[in-house]
Amino acid sequence: MDNKITMELNADELILQALREDISSEDVTTNAVMRKAQKGEAQLICKQDGVLAGLFVFRRVFELLDEGTKVEFQFSDGDKVKKGDLIGTVSGDIRAILSGERTALNFLQRMSGIATYTNSIASLLEGSKVKLLDTRKTTPNMRIFEKYSVKAGGGYNHRYNLSDGILLKDNHIGAAGGVKEAIEMAKEYAPFVRKIEVECETVEMVKEALEAGADIIMLDNMGVEEMQEAIAAIDGKAEIECSGNVTKENIGHYISLGVDYISSGALTHSAPIMDISLKNLHAV
Amino acid sequence: MDNKITMELNADELILQALREDISSEDVTTNAVMRKAQKGEAQLICKQDGVLAGLFVFRRVFELLDEGTKVEFQFSDGDKVKKGDLIGTVSGDIRAILSGERTALNFLQRMSGIATYTNSIASLLEGSKVKLLDTRKTTPNMRIFEKYSVKAGGGYNHRYNLSDGILLKDNHIGAAGGVKEAIEMAKEYAPFVRKIEVECETVEMVKEALEAGADIIMLDNMGVEEMQEAIAAIDGKAEIECSGNVTKENIGHYISLGVDYISSGALTHSAPIMDISLKNLHAV
Amino acid sequence: MDNKITMELNADELILQALREDISSEDVTTNAVMRKAQKGEAQLICKQDGVLAGLFVFRRVFELLDEGTKVEFQFSDGDKVKKGDLIGTVSGDIRAILSGERTALNFLQRMSGIATYTNSIASLLEGSKVKLLDTRKTTPNMRIFEKYSVKAGGGYNHRYNLSDGILLKDNHIGAAGGVKEAIEMAKEYAPFVRKIEVECETVEMVKEALEAGADIIMLDNMGVEEMQEAIAAIDGKAEIECSGNVTKENIGHYISLGVDYISSGALTHSAPIMDISLKNLHAV
Amino acid sequence: MDNKITMELNADELILQALREDISSEDVTTNAVMRKAQKGEAQLICKQDGVLAGLFVFRRVFELLDEGTKVEFQFSDGDKVKKGDLIGTVSGDIRAILSGERTALNFLQRMSGIATYTNSIASLLEGSKVKLLDTRKTTPNMRIFEKYSVKAGGGYNHRYNLSDGILLKDNHIGAAGGVKEAIEMAKEYAPFVRKIEVECETVEMVKEALEAGADIIMLDNMGVEEMQEAIAAIDGKAEIECSGNVTKENIGHYISLGVDYISSGALTHSAPIMDISLKNLHAV
Amino acid sequence: MDNKITMELNADELILQALREDISSEDVTTNAVMRKAQKGEAQLICKQDGVLAGLFVFRRVFELLDEGTKVEFQFSDGDKVKKGDLIGTVSGDIRAILSGERTALNFLQRMSGIATYTNSIASLLEGSKVKLLDTRKTTPNMRIFEKYSVKAGGGYNHRYNLSDGILLKDNHIGAAGGVKEAIEMAKEYAPFVRKIEVECETVEMVKEALEAGADIIMLDNMGVEEMQEAIAAIDGKAEIECSGNVTKENIGHYISLGVDYISSGALTHSAPIMDISLKNLHAV
Amino acid sequence: MDNKITMELNADELILQALREDISSEDVTTNAVMRKAQKGEAQLICKQDGVLAGLFVFRRVFELLDEGTKVEFQFSDGDKVKKGDLIGTVSGDIRAILSGERTALNFLQRMSGIATYTNSIASLLEGSKVKLLDTRKTTPNMRIFEKYSVKAGGGYNHRYNLSDGILLKDNHIGAAGGVKEAIEMAKEYAPFVRKIEVECETVEMVKEALEAGADIIMLDNMGVEEMQEAIAAIDGKAEIECSGNVTKENIGHYISLGVDYISSGALTHSAPIMDISLKNLHAV
Repeated sequence: MDNKITMELNADELILQALREDISSEDVTTNAVMRKAQKGEAQLICKQDGVLAGLFVFRRVFELLDEGTKVEFQFSDGDKVKKGDLIGTVSGDIRAILSGERTALNFLQRMSGIATYTNSIASLLEGSKVKLLDTRKTTPNMRIFEKYSVKAGGGYNHRYNLSDGILLKDNHIGAAGGVKEAIEMAKEYAPFVRKIEVECETVEMVKEALEAGADIIMLDNMGVEEMQEAIAAIDGKAEIECSGNVTKENIGHYISLGVDYISSGALTHSAPIMDISLKNLHAV
Repeated sequence: MDNKITMELNADELILQALREDISSEDVTTNAVMRKAQKGEAQLICKQDGVLAGLFVFRRVFELLDEGTKVEFQFSDGDKVKKGDLIGTVSGDIRAILSGERTALNFLQRMSGIATYTNSIASLLEGSKVKLLDTRKTTPNMRIFEKYSVKAGGGYNHRYNLSDGILLKDNHIGAAGGVKEAIEMAKEYAPFVRKIEVECETVEMVKEALEAGADIIMLDNMGVEEMQEAIAAIDGKAEIECSGNVTKENIGHYISLGVDYISSGALTHSAPIMDISLKNLHAV
Repeated sequence: MDNKITMELNADELILQALREDISSEDVTTNAVMRKAQKGEAQLICKQDGVLAGLFVFRRVFELLDEGTKVEFQFSDGDKVKKGDLIGTVSGDIRAILSGERTALNFLQRMSGIATYTNSIASLLEGSKVKLLDTRKTTPNMRIFEKYSVKAGGGYNHRYNLSDGILLKDNHIGAAGGVKEAIEMAKEYAPFVRKIEVECETVEMVKEALEAGADIIMLDNMGVEEMQEAIAAIDGKAEIECSGNVTKENIGHYISLGVDYISSGALTHSAPIMDISLKNLHAV
Repeated sequence: MDNKITMELNADELILQALREDISSEDVTTNAVMRKAQKGEAQLICKQDGVLAGLFVFRRVFELLDEGTKVEFQFSDGDKVKKGDLIGTVSGDIRAILSGERTALNFLQRMSGIATYTNSIASLLEGSKVKLLDTRKTTPNMRIFEKYSVKAGGGYNHRYNLSDGILLKDNHIGAAGGVKEAIEMAKEYAPFVRKIEVECETVEMVKEALEAGADIIMLDNMGVEEMQEAIAAIDGKAEIECSGNVTKENIGHYISLGVDYISSGALTHSAPIMDISLKNLHAV
Repeated sequence: MDNKITMELNADELILQALREDISSEDVTTNAVMRKAQKGEAQLICKQDGVLAGLFVFRRVFELLDEGTKVEFQFSDGDKVKKGDLIGTVSGDIRAILSGERTALNFLQRMSGIATYTNSIASLLEGSKVKLLDTRKTTPNMRIFEKYSVKAGGGYNHRYNLSDGILLKDNHIGAAGGVKEAIEMAKEYAPFVRKIEVECETVEMVKEALEAGADIIMLDNMGVEEMQEAIAAIDGKAEIECSGNVTKENIGHYISLGVDYISSGALTHSAPIMDISLKNLHAV
Repeated sequence: MDNKITMELNADELILQALREDISSEDVTTNAVMRKAQKGEAQLICKQDGVLAGLFVFRRVFELLDEGTKVEFQFSDGDKVKKGDLIGTVSGDIRAILSGERTALNFLQRMSGIATYTNSIASLLEGSKVKLLDTRKTTPNMRIFEKYSVKAGGGYNHRYNLSDGILLKDNHIGAAGGVKEAIEMAKEYAPFVRKIEVECETVEMVKEALEAGADIIMLDNMGVEEMQEAIAAIDGKAEIECSGNVTKENIGHYISLGVDYISSGALTHSAPIMDISLKNLHAV
């Protein structure tokens, strides 16, 4: 699933930065007790059911620390695993394994936590045409990893950042002088490649946005009836994103309404980690 | 509570990096509809009860984006706030407010989420001498913010990273040839400033560690009876950290046993965000 | 026209890098003859007719070198100027003016060169609905400045980079197994925000792309007749970009055919600089 | 011709920066249609006559993106090629070839464009002792590549930047209080390794500079007669650089006058690219 | 002795930075006379007696410049060598050897100089229980190398920096309102992992610090009698560091007094280099 | 003497890097005892006679840590000071003064140490025409500061690095096939701005170098008689640098021989620091 080539281009710097965050001068404990290289091996074990994401980042942590470390996996990103599963093995200089363990797990646990949580929501959408989207509510300097994890869990990505999508919110509309004006200014400024999305709070706004040629309408915190009216008005002339407090409990509602996308900040901002652990390190 | 001086030294780079993650070329939407500067103001509103952390980071995001932005707060880090409270106001060029909003909130919500969760655990320890510690299970490249948030929530910091503390785990002990040998090697390698902590799984190890002069004993996943025996053996000759699956339910147990510290990875790896929002942006 | 806020976020690093490229240790000449600060002033003079772009970058070079330098302009980006026009004045420590002059002009001359050349093509499209687009054929590490200059000259921006747009070329189509398959895979991978553009070399491909739901069709190096046939087939169901060897001579042709966009790599890869010079530096 | 060792030391960072400019998160198109590695091969074809420069940069782009990519050349930098020539082949993971193509060509086309243009001027000097020099009028953050391209095209390099050469212009002379004073201050400040060049606008200045011991005299925008007089005055006691609006038409003039060097900013600031293209990508 | 893994993580960036400091564009001399690769070999020769430190840094300079360079050593860090000893050989592309020589030696000579000087002091402590400590008086951006060199020479490291140790000096004590208050605040702020050291100028302060639970007492510039009194008061209840103007002449004194540690800034701030040279470079 | 403008451009990054080396997360001690800002003042006192260098770096450390810090000096770089002299005062937030003190002094003491040592040698040359030169034997990543300090002490700078000067040594000569060939290749490769220096070990080489047009002859480790013969042969046709083991004892010799320059690595590689201290910090 992962494309090593472009991932490394942008991820390597962040991984090295994380390693230096944890080892600002040296690993005092390891250097104290292990004065020279010794070959060892450890097992990556799943400690709860979930969906994996970030295996290549886990591996890359060790490779960047010591290119002699080998990491082999029994699973791929996106795979469902069960408590007790052997995910893979790490072998190489024990000092590299000890020094890289925490950083590697910090990435993998968090990424798999997001994939697992995303998957739990996405599975509720199965059988419908509705797609689950993430947001820009990601951890600072972790977006590339978190957006990837959402995909591994069965979700889809909304725009990556402020530079690659147009989303007109109330303040933009206010500044432009109205929905129509905002859409026209956006079309004039960036007529090409980018779809234009408008956040609408009333059916009136929805109609105005449609007329001005919006590609995507985001229905923001509307009540059910209003939402039905809005969707009827849109009538296939634009894609529909539904945002706000979607929960496992109320999601069925949105599906039946016929929206195209449901977006959720919680996928990235509040997913707990998935418990994974590196065990049985021993000399070989 | 915060020391702007040394925080900025290390935090500014991370904040700029996060801003560039969200604005890799330009903020297309804002640039499309706001062709020139316009003064505006917005309110930072609390949307759920919690403990604040990261106000200076929130402010710094806007300052680094546009030094003309002013951010004023009604509260300080560590303060408890209630849903609906006005935390502060942001005023300046509306374009800066719009472009910085998401990044500023991503920091503040996550940091306050950690402070809030930490506080909910720390409050259970009130009245006892037990202190709540964090771990190195932090989000990559967010440690400086997350460790700070734990303190804002009433917790304490364990070692910052592998370079500023010695913690001998089973693999280190194995490599050294025994508890005694590991402690001696650590004392020889780094005799100064650093306390030596040993992770012990049996009462036997605890005794050996004490004899060799360990400063701190970490009792790892011991049963209650074994733990009592270990604590009796230590008898004040070393500090005691208790790690493992401490929960709100079982924490009373640990308090009564008489440990000095309880450490919890969940403080940083699984705290949900605190809901805070920037509202009522309007021209002034 | 320019948004200082997000520009500085990304441009400052590049400007400092350019200054350090020119001053890797010190400005030997200036340090030799000017042992202390002296106030001076110089005039920025236009030496050929053209369209300005990059005034804020020109100013920023001096500000980053010495925050005491003041740069004031009589014109704005996008303005047409004539040989002999006084564009602005630079005042401050003469040493900063001397040390920054070349770097500041290297940016301004190149950016204005692109705006000027773009404008000469864009003016041929006036009165038609056809828009002029740039490409990714920019100078390495100058894209943010060059894409901006195209806009200043009256052009529009195609996608910024490989991360913010989908453009299926023959190799992508080959790898996917056909036009239809490629578009479907793209829609599945990135269903949201991004329009899908397909490069077509035959009318057959155009039809297949339309059917599969392409948003934009790029007609690549087609003959006139074939192009007419393709445009008839598209019939408003997708936007049409015409790429390839468009020249000032043959551009009328494309306008009359009814394409929506004409893209040209030459705007950024082969525009000569605009001659601008800093004159009459004198002590004040 | 190129020295890989010191080039990589300084060029690698710039090449990676250019790749990240084009791939700020991922190559969406390639990732959408190519979910796994596939071996492929493409040909680098010359589309117009010219002189090559930057082959090692072209190769390095692919190596830095994916070390498994192999690039082999039939020519070397400095070689003259004809339209239709096969310059080399690129083989490796098709995803790396697709993702790196534009960045690699952006470097190679621009560098070869400079070499080609430089060569067209340098060839006019053949048979004379006059050498063609570049200037500091290079594209920001591209100097190391552009100065190299000038050499590949048969030109020579003037000083690299403000730190490695002394060139006293009118403002320096003014600040010092005269030609003599400026030269003396320069000799006192930096007596060693660096030659001292003085920009002279009159024969009077030339004489004063000679007397004070200038190593190189730059004749700036002088008329023909004045230049003859100046050259006679110099009489071999200093080297002579002639700068200003040298064109293909008037260059014969300067040769016959007997200057040592002719410098031209156009070599780097206004050379159009050389058309080169990567063709026939196919799976192998 | 050295742990390549974590050293490279932090040292590589500093080594590359040093190489770029010496080669900001190219090695003009080498490029002028050596137009292509040629295999060569040189010998690393000791030119004065001393203790080695930094062999891996010496090797890494060449590897980072050209991965084809091989460096082999007859000695290890910490070994004593004599004038004339062959320390090792460097083989590879002669251009890499020439371009890297100075940077590699600048590291090795300085690091070995520190090891040698440290060893000359440490050897005076042999047979006693007193350990020699370094300080934070290191060369900016060289601390990781200099602290390592002290260990190679037989010394021990005091805290690495302001972030990994607590040392309460007079100003901290003044700000806190007294020795007792300062220690209590430190214990409250950072109760864990870090020992608390207090700099004491009088016996009174020593007593107060002991009572408040200081782990380490630094006796700062006390007279002999006062020091005896202080040591008697401490009586094993805290570790004792003696700082100030310790010299080879008066060090015997401190040993007999019974302090635990003697710290010396001179180890890193005033050690002369050890003379080592790369000789007999020849083609092979 | 110093030019703030270009110094800051290159020095700021190195100063920030040094601050981060000393404060990798926070200043634990200061944060523990000083929970809020408090104005204070301290005095910079000279503790031994010497020559100052680096005052602006000392100031810049505090400014970069906290722009509110003010540093005022009674002296300038290059001034001679005596033990006990008040060099200046630092005032501002006491936390900034405490956190920046060590880094600021590490720069100032080392730079002034070099200036002081350089001055002690340069003063022996007074009255002669001989100038004292530094070398590239500087501390890694400190060259910009160390070369500056040599000038502050009355010395002169040899080439800054491998990129801004040509110095043909035996290996270059060997690779080129002879002195004549090496000089010709250097002239062909870099005919402009750079003087060509040749390291000569015999009178024969000196003659060959002169004939081929060397600008500077370095006499390397020649005996006195041979040196006299070489100088006679040169007879003013090139500048003469004398390198090798020049000491305070034998320097008179070289002066009388009539060389132009004496270069010494010890100026930068073995100068002890100058003792300077920040005293009497108190609240104001």
